Amino acid sequence: PAPTPGPTTPLDLAVIGGDGIGPEVTAEAVKVLRAATEAVGDAEITTTDYSLGAAHWLATGETLTDETLDRLRGHDAILFGAVGAAPNDTRIPSGLIERDLLLKLRFTLDHGVNLRPSRLYPGVVSPLSAPGDIDFVVVREGTEGPYVGNGGAIRTGTPQEIATEVSVNTAFGVERVVRHAFALAAGRPRQHVTLVHKHNVLVHAGHLWRRTVEAVAAEYPQVSHDYMHVDAATIFLTTDPARFDVIVTDNLFGDILTDLAAAVTGGIGLAASGNVNIAGSAPSMFEPVHGSAPDIAGQQKADPTAAILSSALLLEQAGRAEAARRVNEAVWSDLAERATAGGQSVSRSTAQVGDDIAGRL
Amino acid sequence: PAPTPGPTTPLDLAVIGGDGIGPEVTAEAVKVLRAATEAVGDAEITTTDYSLGAAHWLATGETLTDETLDRLRGHDAILFGAVGAAPNDTRIPSGLIERDLLLKLRFTLDHGVNLRPSRLYPGVVSPLSAPGDIDFVVVREGTEGPYVGNGGAIRTGTPQEIATEVSVNTAFGVERVVRHAFALAAGRPRQHVTLVHKHNVLVHAGHLWRRTVEAVAAEYPQVSHDYMHVDAATIFLTTDPARFDVIVTDNLFGDILTDLAAAVTGGIGLAASGNVNIAGSAPSMFEPVHGSAPDIAGQQKADPTAAILSSALLLEQAGRAEAARRVNEAVWSDLAERATAGGQSVSRSTAQVGDDIAGRL
Ligand SMILES: CC(C)[C@H](C(=O)O)[C@@H](O)C(=O)O
Ligand SMILES: CC(C)[C@H](C(=O)O)[C@@H](O)C(=O)O
Repeated sequence: PAPTPGPTTPLDLAVIGGDGIGPEVTAEAVKVLRAATEAVGDAEITTTDYSLGAAHWLATGETLTDETLDRLRGHDAILFGAVGAAPNDTRIPSGLIERDLLLKLRFTLDHGVNLRPSRLYPGVVSPLSAPGDIDFVVVREGTEGPYVGNGGAIRTGTPQEIATEVSVNTAFGVERVVRHAFALAAGRPRQHVTLVHKHNVLVHAGHLWRRTVEAVAAEYPQVSHDYMHVDAATIFLTTDPARFDVIVTDNLFGDILTDLAAAVTGGIGLAASGNVNIAGSAPSMFEPVHGSAPDIAGQQKADPTAAILSSALLLEQAGRAEAARRVNEAVWSDLAERATAGGQSVSRSTAQVGDDIAGRL
Repeated sequence: PAPTPGPTTPLDLAVIGGDGIGPEVTAEAVKVLRAATEAVGDAEITTTDYSLGAAHWLATGETLTDETLDRLRGHDAILFGAVGAAPNDTRIPSGLIERDLLLKLRFTLDHGVNLRPSRLYPGVVSPLSAPGDIDFVVVREGTEGPYVGNGGAIRTGTPQEIATEVSVNTAFGVERVVRHAFALAAGRPRQHVTLVHKHNVLVHAGHLWRRTVEAVAAEYPQVSHDYMHVDAATIFLTTDPARFDVIVTDNLFGDILTDLAAAVTGGIGLAASGNVNIAGSAPSMFEPVHGSAPDIAGQQKADPTAAILSSALLLEQAGRAEAARRVNEAVWSDLAERATAGGQSVSRSTAQVGDDIAGRL
């Protein structure tokens, strides 16, 4: 793939709207991306839509072909909506789309660093009575841990059944994500990294993570660091989330902590994420943390804010810092105005929220 | 071991105070156990103290000998405080005491069912602004999952290091804990079980858990059930914890969810637990969820409430329902009075809280 394009090179995006509310929210993200690009005078954004997800599987029997994967590799970045059928749709084997599409993309495109910022935006209501000033980033490993699918089962369906799941952790995978966390922390005001794991129980993986953090920390004397067990981390995320700056953790703990983080910062409707290929050997992918919400799909009820914030992460990663900054600012003032207008409930349509945010650029 | 003693048979307890605040809080639990026993006229409680934990290891180099384990097996139940040295005490290999003492007890004494009730007691302040009426029980598997220690590492310390952790799940282990959850739910007003797992990613273990829940649910037509991914569960525990009745889950997810549950119900200082051997083949063990808190050890600053509530679970499990009920009631009125007295901060000494609760029996 081409080197990361600068603002004078067109940015060529693949758009995977997916299922449920996915296409609706990515449409608004594209709208805002284009508006921001025009506003700052960056080179244009081109998009190619890919039809993938549960509906596509039902229609074609395909999750993600090698050919589609090859075409996706040719883009500068991927904007992803959400995938997954309704929970009661028994035609689709459970978890199939998540694994054979979403996780396959993360693994095949080597998205080793999963960035998930958590901020309590001005005017947004947290379920905590004293949330404080929350502004941290979870740097989640994205290609290892218990997500590798290396489990199995024997004597299935008998009283002697044994089912295993294997968490795989490599020095290669752990080091690159820990390095990313320290580099990120070095550029933030508080310059602090917290490793979250459960090393008192998961000793082998835990020792690798701890040793790696100690080694990388030695290269960043200005960045302080500490350690927290994952169970204790859920307590602090609930009682004092403002204490965190950068959290680095494995794939499963990162999955759990970022949903909790989204909850305490006012909901999964605002949580953005970037699945980053830091070597640049394949396109990175940006997606809201929320799911496909089939119950409200096609009704213009979904809040596109998480998708729009994910597109700001995309711009940042693509070297378009000024456009990214503008999108973030537009979102913040939109959120602040929602609050003034009497609460954060979205009475506007999905497209209206997109229009309003685009209009602020 | 003898069959579960009734109120007319003496109850023979092993007491493992452990480290830090452990001995202080178990002393109060014993005080309250005795007072409740006397108040309802049950047969006496006899106790034997065991010196185990980090301090014991430093003094003797022993974590838990076969001989001690044999003696422990002879008791009706075990009251456990907390173990673990100060985090910065480098003389003790990290996690050693947790694994070779606490987890060894849970595994060797076959504590397959780890009961962790979560209640927002009247007068206790939750960090949530609208917690609702929280009253659920997490039924955590206690002898399997990623806790089995079946991991390993190769090429340790090199750039090619690979460290694995294996989660082991058996039909035997899963079925008994799921059965316990349904039986428990059947006796509660709302009669509902929620399975928490991550079956879309951890497919093999996930399928075993789901199939087992479906099979057991068929035997309890009056008990409703649903399923929730662990990441989503953290959201609901933060935004609507009152929705839960009985949660059944694996060892690691249970560890994480119960700390979060403790946080939303006003803190780990109130969270009780019982590690139950449901076959009665070895003594069950009752312990507060909190740790040894070395920073406040020996200062009579610790809140013994979680240890006292754990002793109520012990009484219940030992068939001493009336004494258990009295202990719970005494704790609730103590908590309510703390609130009236202007907040839940414990200005009383550890012993004073124990005295006050015992005095209410
Ligand atoms: C859909 C699922 C496989 C995914 C994950 O577990 O990573 C999601 O929960 C997320 O956090 O992006
Ligand atoms: C100390 C530790 C091994 C233990 C666990 O992980 O089970 C603790 O966190 C708990 O929840 O009882």
